[in-house]
Parts: sequence; structure tokens; C-alpha cells
Amino acid sequence: MNIVALAGGVGGAKLVDGLAEILPGDFLTVVVNSGDDFDHFGLRVCPDLDTVCYTLAGIANPDTGWGRNDETWNALENVELLGGPTWFRLGDRDLGVHLERSRLLAEGKSLSEICLWFCSRWDIKHLILPMTDDRVSTLVHSDEGELPFQDYFVRRRCEPEVSGFEFVGSSTAIPAPGVLKAVNEADLIIICPSNPWVSIDPILAVPGLREKIVENIHRQVVIAVSPIIKGETIKGPAAKMFREMGITPSAASVADHYGSIESGGLLSGYVIDNLDAGEQASMERLLIPIKITNTIMKNKLDRINLAREVLAFGRKLFSHRESPSRKDDDHN
Amino acid sequence: MNIVALAGGVGGAKLVDGLAEILPGDFLTVVVNSGDDFDHFGLRVCPDLDTVCYTLAGIANPDTGWGRNDETWNALENVELLGGPTWFRLGDRDLGVHLERSRLLAEGKSLSEICLWFCSRWDIKHLILPMTDDRVSTLVHSDEGELPFQDYFVRRRCEPEVSGFEFVGSSTAIPAPGVLKAVNEADLIIICPSNPWVSIDPILAVPGLREKIVENIHRQVVIAVSPIIKGETIKGPAAKMFREMGITPSAASVADHYGSIESGGLLSGYVIDNLDAGEQASMERLLIPIKITNTIMKNKLDRINLAREVLAFGRKLFSHRESPSRKDDDHN
Repeated sequence: MNIVALAGGVGGAKLVDGLAEILPGDFLTVVVNSGDDFDHFGLRVCPDLDTVCYTLAGIANPDTGWGRNDETWNALENVELLGGPTWFRLGDRDLGVHLERSRLLAEGKSLSEICLWFCSRWDIKHLILPMTDDRVSTLVHSDEGELPFQDYFVRRRCEPEVSGFEFVGSSTAIPAPGVLKAVNEADLIIICPSNPWVSIDPILAVPGLREKIVENIHRQVVIAVSPIIKGETIKGPAAKMFREMGITPSAASVADHYGSIESGGLLSGYVIDNLDAGEQASMERLLIPIKITNTIMKNKLDRINLAREVLAFGRKLFSHRESPSRKDDDHN
Repeated sequence: MNIVALAGGVGGAKLVDGLAEILPGDFLTVVVNSGDDFDHFGLRVCPDLDTVCYTLAGIANPDTGWGRNDETWNALENVELLGGPTWFRLGDRDLGVHLERSRLLAEGKSLSEICLWFCSRWDIKHLILPMTDDRVSTLVHSDEGELPFQDYFVRRRCEPEVSGFEFVGSSTAIPAPGVLKAVNEADLIIICPSNPWVSIDPILAVPGLREKIVENIHRQVVIAVSPIIKGETIKGPAAKMFREMGITPSAASVADHYGSIESGGLLSGYVIDNLDAGEQASMERLLIPIKITNTIMKNKLDRINLAREVLAFGRKLFSHRESPSRKDDDHN
């Protein structure tokens, strides 16, 4: 099976890591949110792309999930001494990546070209692509006004109450080279347990991406893994965002967000945590096949196990899809 | 006495450090070459300004003379891993300074404003000013063509043979706020033992600067300290440059370069090293009072001693200048 994973930062990177452990390089393409990208100190910083790459390269900070392992903070300490902004934690090793990426961008290289090059240097076997080479910037509408994403997420620690999201630049963005081809050729698309509002939606907002998935919906399998467990997230503001958008956060509300194929949405399958087994009944109305398993990834084995479960579930749904008689069964 | 020192990098910073140790804050202004400044990885790097400031702040690397003490190299190691350029050695602590300076420049602050602010954070009591807030870029004409200064100096390790120098942008540059005032009010101007071609000449090329010194030449004392000792330099390519420009490098050729007042030049006094005492006779034709002392600054005490000698020499020349009868003597 050809597999495409749509991923944001930490949670997405963990599942991608599990998938990468068990899938050969040619069979997995990861499309990463670049709506979080921003310019800081004149350097281009790509938090989700770097989190995914650092994780696959085995150089991520295991405690935070983002940033580099064995990191030092001497540059930022000097910025602080000079009275500069330190709310965005740029470590020294991490800075090296932003420096070289910014240099190559200024030379005219595209973000996806740079990503491919960096991945080759990091010995990453799987194809990692930003959703687009164009600038798409997530803007958070909040009770404190419009906030650029990192201002909301890091500087203001997700404290402002959100009322909506805008992906500035997305209407004219073009999917990065290779993205539409991978999506088109995928048998299974996995929506990682990333934030639906600000990690996955920006990817789906790039013109052609959602459309291509919808176009292929009857020959592809699309599975999401819920980032919400017992009404909360492991990390990040997804549950808080659902509440502020007037929706009770739950595994079901994430499924509603993406929508079932039957309702014109994307999902042909959905993975929820063992702790949410009791929610299954309330989701029957969605007519989405559900897999219940452990989705909490505390270590490498958890990542691999969840990846195996998602792949097995995907294979099962795909084989139903391929067999016309079984497909008829599904529709009965 | 009000004192202005014109300085480039390492050699200049050492004498400035000695001067700063013995002069109260209000009496010393240092005007620093910014012709070496360049953009690297999208960040503004100001090597001479930083060398002077790091030295006065007590945070310079004592072994190299440039860069920071107790430095780490994690950012640059990661640039290297990604195949990026590492010929310009940017340490992590040093990077913090470039990051914050670049951020403030992008905000619209001027280089001199930023320099004043950084100096206050570093607890530097003396006024350090870049020669200009405008971009002036030293271009080296060489047998390998025109090379931006850092390309010549660091990347090519001064190996190309030079045939001339150009200070691109200098014709329209304006002295940084405070520079002309300090020069105008100075009783003593000290040309530090920096490279005459690429450290001091760019300063003097900023319109108004050389003119102001020449205008005041009969009420100010201008003393240079030779950067050339026994035909060679302690550090840097000044001697090599003299040779390639067709001039035998010597203390005398530096004095010729700046010129005596009598010949329409700048110098009212000149300091040479004990090792060059034998050259004094050959410089008599220049009609410049000469002070012979130790100019090799191996440690803090050497810096302070040289500063004391230069100041004493300056005071002596200044008192001659002030006394009309003595002045007449000089002209006899």
C-alpha cells in the first residue's frame, strides 16, 4: 500500500515515527503543516517540519517533543542579555538548521527542495514534504484580536480565547512538488493525531489537496487518529479550541470536524483510544468504522504499535473497498 | 583632554582597551570601522565593532582576539552537517548578538543606536560608535577579481594579491550621529595600530571625517601607532598589502600613508616600536615627532602601558601646540 500521512508537530511526529519504523522508504510520504512557519530574527523557522524531521532523524528532544536533544542555549542567552525576545525558544543546534535553511531560501531554493536535502543529510529514508512551498500563515482570531500563530501558541501560551482561524495565503498556494502525486497515488491516507484546527486544516486548505482526497474517496481509505482522549489532549490546545469554538471536545467532535464520507467528509475509518471506548455508541450516527486501541504514545514501542494498528485497520478497510461484494455489504 | 580613537579589529581593540582602563568614560570616543560588516545567513555581522565591544566588555576570546570567550559552536556544526558554509566562524554566543542586532535593524533602529544600547547592556562606559550608519562595504581588488572584504579576509585567508581597495557606498555615507561632534571636540585623535588600508582608510573615507580632522589640524593632535614592526604585522595582512601595493612595509611606510601635517597629511605625532628604533633616522624627512616604545600588546599591562605612553606623548604635543612660543620653536 502507498501511504500518505498528514501531520502537524509533536503528536503527528510520534505516529509518523512509528510508521517510519515499519514501512519501507518508498511507501510513506509525510505531508507536513507549514502554516506555523514564521520569520524570527530574519530567519525562517518551520516548527512542524523540523519536529517531524528531528523525530525521524533521532535528534529530537525526547522530553519536549520539539527542539533538539543535547541542546545548548548560548545564542538565546545572549539575546536575552541584550534585551531581545526569548519567548520562542531557539536552541543553538536548532539555530544552525534555521540559519542554513534561511540561507538556501535566500538563494532561491524552495522549502521542499531544502527539506529533501536536509532529510538526505539526516539520513531520513521517507519522503517528508511541506504542504506547500508558498507562504501560508495561520492567523488566530481571538478575544485579543488577530494573532499570528506563534504569537498565540508560544508567546501567549494559547491563553487568548479563539473564535476562528484563517490560513493567510492559502487561496493562492500551490501544493509542494510531489504532494498531489503522493496523495493521488495513496491507497491509505492517515490523518495523524495532530490539532485539527491548526495542524491538519491548514494542509487541507491548500487548493487541490482536499479536492484530490474527495475525488479519490471511493478508491482510497482515509483514517484519522483522534488527538482527543477523554475530552482532553495529550499536549496542545485542541480541546481548548473546540470548547471556545462552542463544541464539546471529544473523539466524536474530531470525527465530526473531518466528516464521514457518507456526509461528504473525508473519513473512511477512525481510530480512538481505549479510554474512549464508551464513546463508540455515540458515534454510530457517523457511520464510520471505528478502531479502538491505545493511542497514547509514551515510548517508541507505543508509536510502533499504534502505527501497526492503524495500518492493519487501513488494510482491512482497503480490502473491503476493493471487493465489490463486501463494498455492497458496507452499504447495506 | 577629549580623545577620539579610530579603530579596526583586534590590534585597535587592544589599544582601545588600554585607553579605556585609564580614561574616564566621558573622555574617550571610539570610532570603529564598519567597512568589514556583511550579511551572512541573512544576519548583519559587524566584526570590528564586535571585537572592540567584546574586548571592552571583557567577553572577548583572549586567544584569537576576535569572537567570544567560553564560546560553543553547536549552530555552526549543524550548518556544516547540512552542507552549509562554515568559513566564517560564528560561535553560538556571538550569534546571539547578530540575531538581536539584525532584529533591531529590521525594526528600523540604526547601527549606532543599537551599538549604544548593546554597550549599555555590556556595561561599557566609553562611547563606541560605528563610523557610519549607512552601508559602506570594503571591496578588495585582487588578482582573483573584486572580492567582498570577508571573502578576501576570511574565506580566502588574504591569499589573493591585492591591487587596490574600494569603499563601496562611502561617497554618500554620513558619519554616524556623534562622530563628527566627537572628532570636532577632540584634543587628541589616536589612529590605533589597525590596518591602514582596510581598517582606518574606510573610516577616513566617510565624507566629512578626514575633512574635519584636516580642518582642525592646527588645534588638534593626531597620533598614529604603527601596526608594522620590523616590516611585519602582529596579526593581519597589512604588511602583505603594502608589498603588493608596491611599497616596502615598514613603520615609515605607514607614516607616509597617513602623511605628516607638513605634507598635507594627518599626523602630528607617530609611535613606533622599540624594535624599529633604527628606523627613526629614515623618518626624519617626514618632520613628524616620533615616540619609541613597546607597542606589542601581549597582555592587559602592555595595553595600559602603551595607552599611557600615547596619552603622555599626545599631552606633550598638545602643550607645544597650545604655547605659541613653543609652536614657533617647532616651526624653526
